[in-house]
Amino acid sequence: MSELHERSIVIDGLIISNFGRDVFEDMRKAGLTAANCTCCIWEGFEATMRNVVRWKQWFREHGDLITQVYTTKDIVEAKKLGKTGIILGWQNISGIEDQIGYLELFKELGVGIIQMAYNTQNLVGTGCYESKDGGLSDFGRDVVAEMNRLGIMCDLSHVGPETSRDVILTSKKPVTYSHCLPAGLKTHPRNKSDEQLKFIVDRGGFVGVTMFPPFLKRGPQATVDDYVEAIEYVINICGEQSVGIGTDFTQGYGKPFFDWITHDKGYGRRLTDFGDVINPEGMRTIGDWPNLTAAMERRHWSAKRIEGVIGANWLSVLREVWGA
Amino acid sequence: MSELHERSIVIDGLIISNFGRDVFEDMRKAGLTAANCTCCIWEGFEATMRNVVRWKQWFREHGDLITQVYTTKDIVEAKKLGKTGIILGWQNISGIEDQIGYLELFKELGVGIIQMAYNTQNLVGTGCYESKDGGLSDFGRDVVAEMNRLGIMCDLSHVGPETSRDVILTSKKPVTYSHCLPAGLKTHPRNKSDEQLKFIVDRGGFVGVTMFPPFLKRGPQATVDDYVEAIEYVINICGEQSVGIGTDFTQGYGKPFFDWITHDKGYGRRLTDFGDVINPEGMRTIGDWPNLTAAMERRHWSAKRIEGVIGANWLSVLREVWGA
Repeated sequence: MSELHERSIVIDGLIISNFGRDVFEDMRKAGLTAANCTCCIWEGFEATMRNVVRWKQWFREHGDLITQVYTTKDIVEAKKLGKTGIILGWQNISGIEDQIGYLELFKELGVGIIQMAYNTQNLVGTGCYESKDGGLSDFGRDVVAEMNRLGIMCDLSHVGPETSRDVILTSKKPVTYSHCLPAGLKTHPRNKSDEQLKFIVDRGGFVGVTMFPPFLKRGPQATVDDYVEAIEYVINICGEQSVGIGTDFTQGYGKPFFDWITHDKGYGRRLTDFGDVINPEGMRTIGDWPNLTAAMERRHWSAKRIEGVIGANWLSVLREVWGA
Repeated sequence: MSELHERSIVIDGLIISNFGRDVFEDMRKAGLTAANCTCCIWEGFEATMRNVVRWKQWFREHGDLITQVYTTKDIVEAKKLGKTGIILGWQNISGIEDQIGYLELFKELGVGIIQMAYNTQNLVGTGCYESKDGGLSDFGRDVVAEMNRLGIMCDLSHVGPETSRDVILTSKKPVTYSHCLPAGLKTHPRNKSDEQLKFIVDRGGFVGVTMFPPFLKRGPQATVDDYVEAIEYVINICGEQSVGIGTDFTQGYGKPFFDWITHDKGYGRRLTDFGDVINPEGMRTIGDWPNLTAAMERRHWSAKRIEGVIGANWLSVLREVWGA
């Protein structure tokens, strides 16, 4: 672990792993200061509440490794304590079902980032694997306004292009593609065009770059250097202050999990087939995170750029959205 | 009650009233053979199941007046018994939440007609009061296929134009605007254009004409003769075999009910304001139904046309969709 990595605030904008002590130990090995950890994919209200309950138990049982994050001050504090701060996040707003009022409850419970749709259509808008994208619904407009009021960040990674555009234009606070790759390097329904990347940052938004192999140019053959190449591609469009990391680590999961996330609502039609998910060489596990910083250093990025991309930029945009 | 009315099978394609013995007695006074009675508007799975439970109790408690309808044979049998057959119907597919498998359960419990959306966007498609209509979702396509397989009729009365079009083109069985009025007589988001009326019947679909005052040309000043004028307008476009009645009686309800149905999901933004809901003179209550037949007779319609429009046409299309 380089000196730069060790002293920096390191934030991963998206982890969806088979959480438990093994993963939390790996987060410490990674030197992660904070991570946006998914606790809702297809679930409705009650199942999501139960997922939150499970996190509360983990915070008690593994308090030597992790601590819950409500504000960016909590992230700074986690750094001091040498723990990994957990931001609860959703990849699908299905968790509120049809009740806008639930947003306030979840915010108070620590949910700081919510994706507006996951792959398919919901009450708010449309996901990136739908045949057609009708844009943000009127209910969705009210949801965005309430998320703005409460300070919950709108995530658009898996959202369709029209709905994304509507959310970017509707939101009064910065929104994010928390974990995406550029379509300029590989064409894929999940990847974002140069125009889309520019559109979000021109309106104050933020882009986290993922390394999820099916969306990478070289797929399962990719290395951590391919990942840095993709990040650099995004920086060249978005500017180095609007870019961060959102790895999308799916550590500890196998076929049943990938079947679940690649079928509509967990059981419906197949949306895509990832094939083998083999993380880039050098970034196979969360604990390898310092290799990413090392690869940036090998590429002779400035310390300022690296510090920003591995964490400071996320911290800054989260402060803007959360208000503290 | 005319002899023609008395001997005919009389079907009301849509009633959403404050159900109970008073309403069931009025249905008998009306000479109603069957009615599509709404048991889901904004509700999710559990609340809809409870609504069905309440209907089962009513079938037991008021078995002298009403009987449950599962097939068109049950409608013919209700006529013989001198009871009103109750078709359970939904005005919103919200009752299945995100589970296609629930459709089969509800079909077995007697739900024969389901509207694909109620006024606003849901997982299947978009309602008629949304700013934008992105059409039928991919999930919605699977839902239509399953409804076709099970024999549940797709209703489009409150559905947006693009979603309606998609459902009409996707469904392999006839679909319906069960309760609508022509935009040719009054422009309103709920009314259907001449093109829309022609489009659905050209593809085997069916149109039930409503008398809900806010959508009638003369509003609360309308009489039963205005209602017959509107029906005749629709017949001139659709042909007399593809047209029936769907009154939309909201008997026994007041402001809290209208507030509930005119706000998204029952509590959200206001979608429309009906003003005073005063049914057409001569059709103030369900028990006045024979006056509608009388008005058709006054207009010198043929007995065949009247028999078709007041019930036989519905019976025929329901047999086609339900398979029995």
